[in-house]
Amino acid sequence: MAATGTVTAFEIHDVRFPTSERLDGSDAMHPDPDYSAAYLVLHTAGGPRGHGLCFTLGRGNDVMAAAIRSLAPYLVGRPVPATAADLAALHRDLTHDSQLRWLGPEKGVMQMAAGAVLNAAWDLAARRAGLPVWEFLAAMTPEDLVSLVDFRYLSDALTPGEALALLRAAEPGRAARAARLKAEGYPAYTTSPGWLGYDDGKLVRLAKEAVADGFGQIKLKVGADLDDDKRRLRLARAAVGPGVRIAVDANQRWDVAEAVRWMTALAPYTPYWIEEPTSPDDVLGHAAVRSGQPVKVATGEHVANRVVFKQLLQAGAVDFVQIDAARVAGVNENLAILLLAAKYGVPVCPHAGGVGLCELVQHLAMFDYVAVSGSRDDRVIEYVDHLHEHFVHPVVIEHGRYRAPAAPGFSAEMHPASLAAHRYPDGPVWRARRTTEEALA
Amino acid sequence: MAATGTVTAFEIHDVRFPTSERLDGSDAMHPDPDYSAAYLVLHTAGGPRGHGLCFTLGRGNDVMAAAIRSLAPYLVGRPVPATAADLAALHRDLTHDSQLRWLGPEKGVMQMAAGAVLNAAWDLAARRAGLPVWEFLAAMTPEDLVSLVDFRYLSDALTPGEALALLRAAEPGRAARAARLKAEGYPAYTTSPGWLGYDDGKLVRLAKEAVADGFGQIKLKVGADLDDDKRRLRLARAAVGPGVRIAVDANQRWDVAEAVRWMTALAPYTPYWIEEPTSPDDVLGHAAVRSGQPVKVATGEHVANRVVFKQLLQAGAVDFVQIDAARVAGVNENLAILLLAAKYGVPVCPHAGGVGLCELVQHLAMFDYVAVSGSRDDRVIEYVDHLHEHFVHPVVIEHGRYRAPAAPGFSAEMHPASLAAHRYPDGPVWRARRTTEEALA
Repeated sequence: MAATGTVTAFEIHDVRFPTSERLDGSDAMHPDPDYSAAYLVLHTAGGPRGHGLCFTLGRGNDVMAAAIRSLAPYLVGRPVPATAADLAALHRDLTHDSQLRWLGPEKGVMQMAAGAVLNAAWDLAARRAGLPVWEFLAAMTPEDLVSLVDFRYLSDALTPGEALALLRAAEPGRAARAARLKAEGYPAYTTSPGWLGYDDGKLVRLAKEAVADGFGQIKLKVGADLDDDKRRLRLARAAVGPGVRIAVDANQRWDVAEAVRWMTALAPYTPYWIEEPTSPDDVLGHAAVRSGQPVKVATGEHVANRVVFKQLLQAGAVDFVQIDAARVAGVNENLAILLLAAKYGVPVCPHAGGVGLCELVQHLAMFDYVAVSGSRDDRVIEYVDHLHEHFVHPVVIEHGRYRAPAAPGFSAEMHPASLAAHRYPDGPVWRARRTTEEALA
Repeated sequence: MAATGTVTAFEIHDVRFPTSERLDGSDAMHPDPDYSAAYLVLHTAGGPRGHGLCFTLGRGNDVMAAAIRSLAPYLVGRPVPATAADLAALHRDLTHDSQLRWLGPEKGVMQMAAGAVLNAAWDLAARRAGLPVWEFLAAMTPEDLVSLVDFRYLSDALTPGEALALLRAAEPGRAARAARLKAEGYPAYTTSPGWLGYDDGKLVRLAKEAVADGFGQIKLKVGADLDDDKRRLRLARAAVGPGVRIAVDANQRWDVAEAVRWMTALAPYTPYWIEEPTSPDDVLGHAAVRSGQPVKVATGEHVANRVVFKQLLQAGAVDFVQIDAARVAGVNENLAILLLAAKYGVPVCPHAGGVGLCELVQHLAMFDYVAVSGSRDDRVIEYVDHLHEHFVHPVVIEHGRYRAPAAPGFSAEMHPASLAAHRYPDGPVWRARRTTEEALA
């Protein structure tokens, strides 16, 4: 028998949703996503379980599952991480494994796998503490928070001492901001109207619904055809009126000069920001796009790690930092990115959507407000209204705002029935789909 | 029965060599590598086979194998790629899969897997043409070569027209340079003396052997301890004399300021270059290191893709571009990087070693000399004397130079007996090792 307080098993699921059937999530680079998750459950002896996931677009979800499995020896049979020191050590173990780091280093499949495992460990630690992750983090001392960050490669932009000073400066207001957050929630924007595969009628209808639901910002996918983009922006503006912001998102579609040309042409339609104008690896390219046209620049959902975020900030390449809960090495690396953004005074507007990304990232934005930046000004969390029904504690959106989650943990736990129904390739949803395809063939 | 000229199967091997037993390959970030390969054989109906591989350090080799497997639908059951157009289309398919690209994009495990598959396809195409890959490439027209490159995200630094002009300018001298290459070979340097786990006696003995073998350059690993590095550099200089270059390699060990301090301290020992002083993602960091201390800067073996190489060149961050045959998306992406380096006038000095990296990358450097840069000045290919005995056509080093390979293909084919002996986890080498460990336990 394993001792109480020991991780006993990794339970890994390949879960896929056939979202490509309705073009939900379609953009200029990803026309047919099947929103999926490589989903991890940490079992413990006699205690709560921890839940984490990697979001993918379908194919390759099995590769992510294999990558998560490769990290099991760092937890299975070992004590449950409970303290900041435990979670700092786990982060170091997972990202600095002397053999596995060759597969990145700190990027792509292995980095996302490390993120899923770390986030599951954070879920578990927060559940044991009886707190949602945002409050679990906001209850830590500045010293503990600094100890969670890997400052390797950051010291030319942010030192541990500077991070500590930032966190200490925000400490006196924590309780008041937490109370305000519980009362008021955190501003959201919605991408639901703007998928590229939706026709004009659906765009207009969903844009009007977004305003009626209280959102102050929507987002449209752009980048496939300039005339279409102009028409869609015009329709969306007419639908939402002058007081609602409309961000646009090119999903990495352009080269630098093309981004500058395209956004110069769209600028008269007053888009609030242009998101992912070019390659997420192109720091200098983002800087050139930002200086070459009048629309503010946002990026981050595909930025592989803190080192690239550091450079985006050093180069003055972005107006908004878009963290993603499941792209980098978990809470620890996102904490580094929040601190970098605070140092450079750039607002963090998280990427979300996918499978469980809203559920996860809300905790990080709320923690940022309470204990790091201390501000909700110019900050919004993305919201997409897909697939929340599969989560035990789905996000709650009221009047265009995320309600602060109250359940202990990281909100990433999925319903067992959802896991079973969407198991790939042999769950009933996928068996039925193959039967349909065979009948049509 | 599949038609002749169809790819019929992906045969994937997880092959690992227990190199950590002797500290071969040990450096400041990778103290205990077990040199490994996720190895791919493309079977065809009635024709030759194609061979490609991902090099890894052991753990995670199974994740690479899963990633390679995920790409099988792009080849199995389809015609064998034979022409430049076929190989360009395959490159686009593998790197722009609308679902798989989420796992990168174009970095880490999926990018290396795409590289292994593409390199296997190049091996196959060159075998069918009866040419080694370097000559197969050097026989293509400038137009065909340009068609192989994905210029997405490159056009602010290199346009297709500029690439074409570069290749056309080099065209008249191709035959003369190919003849010179066959007569003289291509300069090499050796890393064999310098692994961090070797003691001083072994370092001195191997450094002397390197000079006796005709090498004009050796390389030492540094970055663990400054006093050790000074002593080792002093010993190496005494062993090789004043006329042999000694490069040093920190394997990403330092932050920017630390790299500047450390290399300023080592500069009196006249190291030829400092390799990987900091994170491979840190373009701005490399630029700061290059301008902050007197030693030339080299990097590239962990650079994920052409977009990061582009920025290293735009930012003036490197004196040498170190391509790796198996890190990026195969021949196609390395061709983009060779063209970028030629545009910026920066010499390419390939990274090699590992499992099969010397065998593969020699073709790219030789093609660069014949048809792109047109020069061997300031250019050397790394050489490490491990594991060549497992290859059917191992590299041949004579008087410190790579002999131009003559066998058709990419030189990556391994002996069946080597694959069988080192199969992980159940091949005889690993079974014997476990038996030894159990006996010692």
